[in-house]
Amino acid sequence: MKFSLQRADTLPLYQQLVEQIREYIRSGSLPVGSRLPTVRQLASDYGLTRLTVHTAYAELQAQGLIESVVGRGTFVCTDLPIPTGLHKGARVTRVQPPPEWLSQGVLADMMRLGEQSEIISFAQVTPALETYPTAEFQRAMRAVLEMPCALGYGPTQGELALREQIVRLLLDRGIATRPDNVLMTAGAQQGIDLVLRACVTPDDVILVEESTYVGLLELAAQRRQRIISIPTDQDGIQLAALEEACQRYRPRLLYLIPTFNNPTGRSLAQERRHAVLRIAKEYNLLIVEDDIYGLLSYDRPAPLPLKASDSEGRVIYLFSFSKVLMPALRLCAVVAAPEQIQLLAGAKRSSDLLCSPILQYALANYLKRHQLQAHIQQVRPLYRERREAMLEALADYLPECDWSVPAGGLCVWVNLPEHIDERQLYLSAIQRGVGIAPGSAFYVLPDMPPAMRLSFSSNPLARIRQGITLLSQIVQEQSRGGVSQRRSIG
Amino acid sequence: MKFSLQRADTLPLYQQLVEQIREYIRSGSLPVGSRLPTVRQLASDYGLTRLTVHTAYAELQAQGLIESVVGRGTFVCTDLPIPTGLHKGARVTRVQPPPEWLSQGVLADMMRLGEQSEIISFAQVTPALETYPTAEFQRAMRAVLEMPCALGYGPTQGELALREQIVRLLLDRGIATRPDNVLMTAGAQQGIDLVLRACVTPDDVILVEESTYVGLLELAAQRRQRIISIPTDQDGIQLAALEEACQRYRPRLLYLIPTFNNPTGRSLAQERRHAVLRIAKEYNLLIVEDDIYGLLSYDRPAPLPLKASDSEGRVIYLFSFSKVLMPALRLCAVVAAPEQIQLLAGAKRSSDLLCSPILQYALANYLKRHQLQAHIQQVRPLYRERREAMLEALADYLPECDWSVPAGGLCVWVNLPEHIDERQLYLSAIQRGVGIAPGSAFYVLPDMPPAMRLSFSSNPLARIRQGITLLSQIVQEQSRGGVSQRRSIG
Repeated sequence: MKFSLQRADTLPLYQQLVEQIREYIRSGSLPVGSRLPTVRQLASDYGLTRLTVHTAYAELQAQGLIESVVGRGTFVCTDLPIPTGLHKGARVTRVQPPPEWLSQGVLADMMRLGEQSEIISFAQVTPALETYPTAEFQRAMRAVLEMPCALGYGPTQGELALREQIVRLLLDRGIATRPDNVLMTAGAQQGIDLVLRACVTPDDVILVEESTYVGLLELAAQRRQRIISIPTDQDGIQLAALEEACQRYRPRLLYLIPTFNNPTGRSLAQERRHAVLRIAKEYNLLIVEDDIYGLLSYDRPAPLPLKASDSEGRVIYLFSFSKVLMPALRLCAVVAAPEQIQLLAGAKRSSDLLCSPILQYALANYLKRHQLQAHIQQVRPLYRERREAMLEALADYLPECDWSVPAGGLCVWVNLPEHIDERQLYLSAIQRGVGIAPGSAFYVLPDMPPAMRLSFSSNPLARIRQGITLLSQIVQEQSRGGVSQRRSIG
Repeated sequence: MKFSLQRADTLPLYQQLVEQIREYIRSGSLPVGSRLPTVRQLASDYGLTRLTVHTAYAELQAQGLIESVVGRGTFVCTDLPIPTGLHKGARVTRVQPPPEWLSQGVLADMMRLGEQSEIISFAQVTPALETYPTAEFQRAMRAVLEMPCALGYGPTQGELALREQIVRLLLDRGIATRPDNVLMTAGAQQGIDLVLRACVTPDDVILVEESTYVGLLELAAQRRQRIISIPTDQDGIQLAALEEACQRYRPRLLYLIPTFNNPTGRSLAQERRHAVLRIAKEYNLLIVEDDIYGLLSYDRPAPLPLKASDSEGRVIYLFSFSKVLMPALRLCAVVAAPEQIQLLAGAKRSSDLLCSPILQYALANYLKRHQLQAHIQQVRPLYRERREAMLEALADYLPECDWSVPAGGLCVWVNLPEHIDERQLYLSAIQRGVGIAPGSAFYVLPDMPPAMRLSFSSNPLARIRQGITLLSQIVQEQSRGGVSQRRSIG
């Protein structure tokens, strides 16, 4: 940071200093959280009086750009009141609580919608009930309940019998690991929570895709986590923007759903995967790779996860059984380097001691007797068919929208016409008996274009068509009403 | 806060101010976290120059007693370097990580000891394997695995069918509540974690008994939670000390195991229970009442929980099935006022979305068909007998110690002779094949007298006797060796 100060200028010296520091902050050259020189040092470097520098710092402080911490120094504020350049409107945000119209949070709403059988819910991403391997799981459970050791406490890291099975099946995703590197958590949600607890302070910046998992955003809002979203396109996260954010914000962690992303259904292109790993290495970034949809490919084999190429132990990989088997198992495998596993296990112990050995042994037994891949082969045609039905219904009934064509996973992302009021659509849809997930739930940034996420997995074909028809009616009504409404405001 | 400043004194004015403020802080009249007057105000009130006050504050800051926060003012530090008066050595502590000789934390060690069948473990508090109602639970589970709805997601608050059963059985503890006021969590550990997440910031002070649950202390250490312990006696927490701490530290929450306390086995006297509620009301304190041992009474009915008299909704009550049924259920009921339940459910959703519906329905079915009280009646004689065996063995083999005589619960607290090195005892015991929980694991304060917690629940009578005999040998060896060692140091 260099200053060009003109004593002859009409602007006082302190004001020149203010303007130039402000510009350094705005441009990102002075990233949020970075330390400024001391008053004494800056005064001495530029032959200024300490009063001049002090006055400049006081002015910047009054503008909310810098803050002093006694005994530590002066820093660029974490909540900057001015926009910086990375992304139209991008800035480090403390995630806000979700809008009040989603009363208890979006995740809660989606979960409630999923519980009401009279509603055609496209809101929650859940596997189809009819795919649950009920009989096989019953047999797997029977043996467990005869083992008293499965009914007591067990290791926090998870039962070895299960971790061994997981190591075996992860070979299908190109990951070669050992049971020591696996920690069992209560779903991917707990995996994410533990990573934030163990590896990230709320003052660390974390990066996410432009639209990302609601559960992460709610958690971040509760923690008042510093977070920034990176623009994405058809091929996933944009590398230049990622690198720029790394330079500017010194983030600690990147959370990514690179394969059949929730909510978009898109995947990170193969060539970008290696680049993301390279950037992570260069900027000493941890990556959380949420791969809970990776096995659910319909058209061609899914891309290999980043973890498969993670030679450095930077990737904390999440593999949950909720979407590929049954959500009620509440079991997810976190795969990471041993020192990370140890930290995460400490956080797990403080969270809830351990996952139920009953469920862990039952799942281990199931995986011992049945190939998970065989189960996936069975469910794939069903989901493929439902995806087709939804895409066709969208083409037939909502031609004014555009949408993603997911090669896997369980949901479609629909961009709505600009004039659609997302909130009104969401509420009207519930009244007509259709549940959707509003697009705004998935964004860090406010005021994004209206959109919705539709999950095609849990409804039969006729209901999918019926649900989209109802949505189409609402969109058309809003298009008519919305135009007149806008006129009346104008 | 009044100062008596003598201009004629040999001590400079600023120094007089320093001494007097220091004394206000030491005596607790200026509690930690409280704000001091501004320099301007204090100067004007006492006709001092601002420089005098400024110098005094700078001196106090250098002593680590006060700290300035730009834009907010000057405050008494939260980590005071001087002892205050409440409790010999009592001070607000950011709990320190456990001593390194307990490698990954005490809880981890205890859990590991419990897993090794060749060790006679008194370390972990766990019900006896032979008490698990295996056949009944198998029947309860069978119906569940035929219901696809039990295999998917469910409400974050917990399945209604289970919450209804819990409401019914809590009548046995004198608690009349409704399913709306119940939240299901993954064991009491998660209940505690959620309360801290949802209701307490790390800067709030929480109060605990002098010795308390290890899992809370580990969690507090991870959060760097401000915590203070209240002296206890045979009848539980001391009221005068509790009230003094409330005045001095403005705590947010009191965590209490009032019935068959872990680790002491003692209970809060009946007359103190109402006083604790009165104090909580007066100082606007939340109480977390951990009642996971309340049903396990052996001599007379257990005292009623505080929650039974909680007319104001100040008590967040924890009732877990881990100790009274099977730990692997990982199910605990949190009972609280509806607005608290809503906050806690938000934290639960961000932690792991929900408890497994499989286990919830299975437990609900079990409770529908079997009275939990009937199960308790069956296990009571076994635990009573094991408690007797342990107390007798202690009397026979460790007469140099004294110990608690618990009327319920699963553990005995043993005070060791002063010269015993707890660490050495712990390590030697493992070498001889006996697991104990070292007393220091349960204290907030360092340098407490040596002690150990012994759980009598999971070993048959002969092994209890054998284990105590081995402990007695180590204590005797240490008594001989310890004396000579101390001589050699002296």
